[in-house]
Amino acid sequence: MPHDGQDLNLDAADGTALLDDLTALTGAAVPAADAMLAAATEALRARVTRDGRVSGAALERHQTAAHGLAWLATYVESLRQMQGWAERLQAEGRFGEIEALIHQIAFGEYLAQMRGGIPMSQGEILRPADLGIDAGALDTPQVDTLVAHGNGNAARLRLVALMRDNAGRATVGATGLDEEMEMIREQFRRFSDDKVVPHAHEWHLRDELIPMSIIEEMAELGVFGLTIPEEFGGLGMSKMSMCVVSEELSRGYIGVGSLGTRSEIAAELILCGGTQDQKAHWLPKLASAEILPTAVFTEPNTGSDLGSLRTRAVRDGDDYAITGNKTWITHASRTQVMTLLARTDPETTDYKGLSMFLAEKTPGDCAHPFPDAGITGGEIEVLGYRGMKEYELAFDGFRVKGENLLGGVEGQGFKQLMQTFESARIQTAARAIGVAQNAMEVAMQYAIDRKQFGKSLIEFPRVASKLAMMAAEIMVARQLTYFSAREKDAERRCDLEAGMAKLLGARVAWAAADNGLQIHGGNGFALEYSISRILCDSRILNIFEGAAEIQAQVIARRLLG
Amino acid sequence: MPHDGQDLNLDAADGTALLDDLTALTGAAVPAADAMLAAATEALRARVTRDGRVSGAALERHQTAAHGLAWLATYVESLRQMQGWAERLQAEGRFGEIEALIHQIAFGEYLAQMRGGIPMSQGEILRPADLGIDAGALDTPQVDTLVAHGNGNAARLRLVALMRDNAGRATVGATGLDEEMEMIREQFRRFSDDKVVPHAHEWHLRDELIPMSIIEEMAELGVFGLTIPEEFGGLGMSKMSMCVVSEELSRGYIGVGSLGTRSEIAAELILCGGTQDQKAHWLPKLASAEILPTAVFTEPNTGSDLGSLRTRAVRDGDDYAITGNKTWITHASRTQVMTLLARTDPETTDYKGLSMFLAEKTPGDCAHPFPDAGITGGEIEVLGYRGMKEYELAFDGFRVKGENLLGGVEGQGFKQLMQTFESARIQTAARAIGVAQNAMEVAMQYAIDRKQFGKSLIEFPRVASKLAMMAAEIMVARQLTYFSAREKDAERRCDLEAGMAKLLGARVAWAAADNGLQIHGGNGFALEYSISRILCDSRILNIFEGAAEIQAQVIARRLLG
Ligand SMILES: Cc1cc2nc3c(=O)[nH]c(=O)nc-3n(C[C@H](O)[C@H](O)[C@H](O)COP(=O)(O)OP(=O)(O)OC[C@H]3O[C@@H](n4cnc5c(N)ncnc54)[C@H](O)[C@@H]3O)c2cc1C
Ligand SMILES: Cc1cc2nc3c(=O)[nH]c(=O)nc-3n(C[C@H](O)[C@H](O)[C@H](O)COP(=O)(O)OP(=O)(O)OC[C@H]3O[C@@H](n4cnc5c(N)ncnc54)[C@H](O)[C@@H]3O)c2cc1C
Ligand SMILES: CC(C)(COP(=O)(O)OP(=O)(O)OC[C@H]1O[C@@H](n2cnc3c(N)ncnc32)[C@H](O)[C@@H]1OP(=O)(O)O)[C@@H](O)C(=O)NCCC(=O)NCCS
Ligand SMILES: CC(C)(COP(=O)(O)OP(=O)(O)OC[C@H]1O[C@@H](n2cnc3c(N)ncnc32)[C@H](O)[C@@H]1OP(=O)(O)O)[C@@H](O)C(=O)NCCC(=O)NCCS
Repeated sequence: MPHDGQDLNLDAADGTALLDDLTALTGAAVPAADAMLAAATEALRARVTRDGRVSGAALERHQTAAHGLAWLATYVESLRQMQGWAERLQAEGRFGEIEALIHQIAFGEYLAQMRGGIPMSQGEILRPADLGIDAGALDTPQVDTLVAHGNGNAARLRLVALMRDNAGRATVGATGLDEEMEMIREQFRRFSDDKVVPHAHEWHLRDELIPMSIIEEMAELGVFGLTIPEEFGGLGMSKMSMCVVSEELSRGYIGVGSLGTRSEIAAELILCGGTQDQKAHWLPKLASAEILPTAVFTEPNTGSDLGSLRTRAVRDGDDYAITGNKTWITHASRTQVMTLLARTDPETTDYKGLSMFLAEKTPGDCAHPFPDAGITGGEIEVLGYRGMKEYELAFDGFRVKGENLLGGVEGQGFKQLMQTFESARIQTAARAIGVAQNAMEVAMQYAIDRKQFGKSLIEFPRVASKLAMMAAEIMVARQLTYFSAREKDAERRCDLEAGMAKLLGARVAWAAADNGLQIHGGNGFALEYSISRILCDSRILNIFEGAAEIQAQVIARRLLG
Repeated sequence: MPHDGQDLNLDAADGTALLDDLTALTGAAVPAADAMLAAATEALRARVTRDGRVSGAALERHQTAAHGLAWLATYVESLRQMQGWAERLQAEGRFGEIEALIHQIAFGEYLAQMRGGIPMSQGEILRPADLGIDAGALDTPQVDTLVAHGNGNAARLRLVALMRDNAGRATVGATGLDEEMEMIREQFRRFSDDKVVPHAHEWHLRDELIPMSIIEEMAELGVFGLTIPEEFGGLGMSKMSMCVVSEELSRGYIGVGSLGTRSEIAAELILCGGTQDQKAHWLPKLASAEILPTAVFTEPNTGSDLGSLRTRAVRDGDDYAITGNKTWITHASRTQVMTLLARTDPETTDYKGLSMFLAEKTPGDCAHPFPDAGITGGEIEVLGYRGMKEYELAFDGFRVKGENLLGGVEGQGFKQLMQTFESARIQTAARAIGVAQNAMEVAMQYAIDRKQFGKSLIEFPRVASKLAMMAAEIMVARQLTYFSAREKDAERRCDLEAGMAKLLGARVAWAAADNGLQIHGGNGFALEYSISRILCDSRILNIFEGAAEIQAQVIARRLLG
């Protein structure tokens, strides 16, 4: 194919739209992207350094730039991971046209955004000048070609044509994972299609708890013990497998894909911070789902700034008495144990005085959601992310056994939790991918079925382009998430990588749902259509497990730190 | 103020952040923007012209570019209108710092997007190359300065500081309207605050009809006859006044701001297309709200492609018998007359065989929503935009008097409606502004009240920046809408201008609601907080009254036509 000007983009709506030597082009773009990131990092570091150290106050003053840097770094890492994916597939002879188009569109679009503006949210577009640099590092012939032709009309329309032939496949394009992972995907895909998809929308509309029978079937499939070592009754599998499972369950329903999040948090907390006895006692029960946990961190006045929380845990004989208010506690009623963060050192106001408890509770029902003495609670009605229900909780001298202090030592709670958040955020990124995939699949089907002006909506370039961008961005988010999972599996600290995956995944899911709804026209606004739920469900991803701004902050600090 | 490099953007977070000679700079940028638009129009025209005429098939093939052109033209018109607003205020000595900051941010941001990419939706970013041009026309020193410094951190933070002092004012910055209009605004602002705001959220949550008492009070204030000539019992006021009233009512609740839409459609239809008798009969009753109308156009298989609708109206003696299915009919049950579009010429399949009826019906109640013979209907449950309820309707030989054929001549229905849509879209743009203003106000209050990390959220640049962008974009959408209203008041065809105002307004409202929710963190996701409703309400604006893609199509065709 010639690279002879814009007609490649605008007129070649049929036939292949692929650039020559694509992976060589994209491979050459990665160092250019790295150079831009290095320049931006140095520019910001210079701006926020006071007396040789990064100043928190200066960083806050330059917060928009700092978060922009986080986004830029996320894009650069995304491109690197896409390149790795493409090269691995190519080596295996599996880099087909559909993969190449996704790769090309992703590079074209993300490089163009790095030059022209990255949307951190609708309305907050971050440009090189905001970082105190120009995008000169991207002025290479390869980047020019990719920006000019990578995400062209022709490429998008061709990708959508191939997506139509791809119907029934679990993903658009090969994921690059090995056969074992793809078998797991298939298994959970079937489970979702058979057991979840037919009911999810009703559960949502009726604001019902996901039936225990589903949880039991998931337990049998090993969902809750997936990453727990075999010695503790789990399957001892990788975080990568957790991603695949979470994607497929969330594709069916975010609520189902999120059941495991709490078990993941509890198990990680215990594995990383628990005593031998605690591991032996709790892990097998978590793995079998004999015990379902709930994560009790957030308070009415304390969300992002978790370190300042005020719920007190006061030593009383061998036990602790918990007093204070918590809120936004997902699945609080039906569960048997709370991973509960509270302040054991009343002299402190920061994270140092916090401790984590494995606080046992009695599962409730509708009539008595919180039967234990010392806890009361009420449901918070929500836009989406239903299926487990959220609650406000008030503790008044609620008793926790002393042996249930995680690790047996006070004051470790916050750091224990922060380590755990790495896994939780990887899992959340995978949930986002599943939700985005769901949005894409229902929108694609609708666009095929619905006719206006005498043809299927999918025949209109604006509709097809939306679908193509979903497919491309889903693959980017996926590769970035798999990267963070691999890092975690290699036991490397990966709050940076997990934060990036979560940050990007949440935006990708929200955009996919938004555009998926738009493709549905008026019907998208009807509660009857599942896309109306997917829109609501996807909106949570930018808020919980660290809001987008907090995620960007974590990434920026690590980049500068 | 010196224009001495990026530090203006990044470091001057306090003090004035205004560029010298701002309106001269922005004034010089408008012709540059015009030149870019001219280049883009010619490039696209060349691409879609076949045998000397714009080819529909070629236009469809280049749809993304065509819609991008529509967006570009919308931006250019926005800048022109902002410039006119700034100059008029300046001449009157009312162009204060807050107005100047809004003006500067708007120019900085929109010019930067014209160069670097305009987000047509989340995920569809249109860049100059997609239009077959470069942005060379924007390479002027004034544009460079505005892009580099217009929408800087310092300007945004300063704007937000002034917004905090501005509390209680109806708008952020002077609208530029005259005193009469501002008195109307004040009157309806008070009405909304007293009668609507305290109840809107409950109406939404309970999915209730807006109480008749509210409609009666609105009728007393003249809402339904606002633009109907005095000779027909109305107030004979301008479309501009309709905008102001719609903004303020929609700021209270989109449902309340939309009650008048149907009356506006009906009155416009009758004024433009009705016979003398029809005017005399219907207009006074519409003006007094003795009669409430409902707009019956869309069908299950026909939304955007309205011209192909299939509901038949068959002559039967003096009357017509209507048979067919309609859907998405807002306020269908409680109303007394339907402006109903149906096919009178069964030989046709396009718009030429359509006629408009003023079809009388008996208002229904919950038990019997459609008491007349020949109509049945059911409610469609929706995400937002409640308060009037939406219905599917089935007509089976429903009778309409022959005298109620609009204009007394068959086959005119579609064109009558298209003319009417100009007003309806202007009114919808004004509704969007009201919804966006509501999002901004509640988010701003929340950002002041909520503390994290020891300070109000509004102190964080990422939070403040979101609010600043809302204020700036709301003013842009407002000036564009007022422009289209002035065109309509001058009795010039303005489907182009109205389409632009609606297109931009819908995106601005959606972005404001999205970012407003983000500022609320987890609480934004709770049904209890009104921002959760505003998000849902704002989502409709991109769909009805011509979906965003259809609006862009209408604009593109007019630009090329
Ligand atoms: C449906 C749902 C389920 C949840 N489930 C759980 C659960 O099971 N357990 C649990 O403990 N918690 C849970 N949460 C709570 C969730 O983790 C918090 O909502 C989240 O951490 C954000 O905190 P917040 O709501 O207090 O927002 P805030 O911290 O008040 O933040 C509000 C906004 O301000 C921004 N902001 C805050 N600080 C800064 C800053 N320094 N700079 C710039 N911007 C800033 C945020 O990014 C956000 O946009 C859940 C929440 C929801 C909505
Ligand atoms: C809450 C609500 C209230 C409403 N109230 C009324 C009312 O009172 N009276 C009434 O008559 N109608 C009403 N409508 C209907 C509304 O006007 C239609 O939903 C709207 O015109 C879009 O039509 P559609 O839903 O059939 O979408 P479709 O036409 O099926 O469009 C679906 C998607 O495809 C896109 N698309 C369609 N054609 C093209 C093309 N050629 N090129 C590119 N993209 C294209 C659209 O932009 C949209 O994104 C209402 C709708 C809603 C949701
Ligand atoms: C904002 C936030 C990132 C922490 O900010 P902070 O209070 O400034 O805390 P710091 O980043 O200074 O971290 C405190 C300590 O934990 C350590 N820490 C942080 N992340 C860590 C990680 N991933 N691994 C190990 N240690 C970590 C820090 O090194 C620091 O230790 P030090 O003082 O010995 O150097 C954190 O509160 C957060 O993630 N908030 C969002 C809450 C959330 O996600 N809730 C979801 C509930 S479902
Ligand atoms: C898509 C859409 C713009 C029309 O597309 P179309 O079927 O291709 O129709 P055209 O644009 O060719 O217009 C048909 C005729 O009406 C005329 N017309 C269109 N808009 C007009 C206007 N604003 N004023 C006067 N005449 C107009 C055209 O000139 C044409 O007449 P001609 O054939 O004599 O030249 C229209 O169907 C539409 O607005 N759809 C959205 C529906 C909607 O908004 N529903 C909301 C319900 S609440």
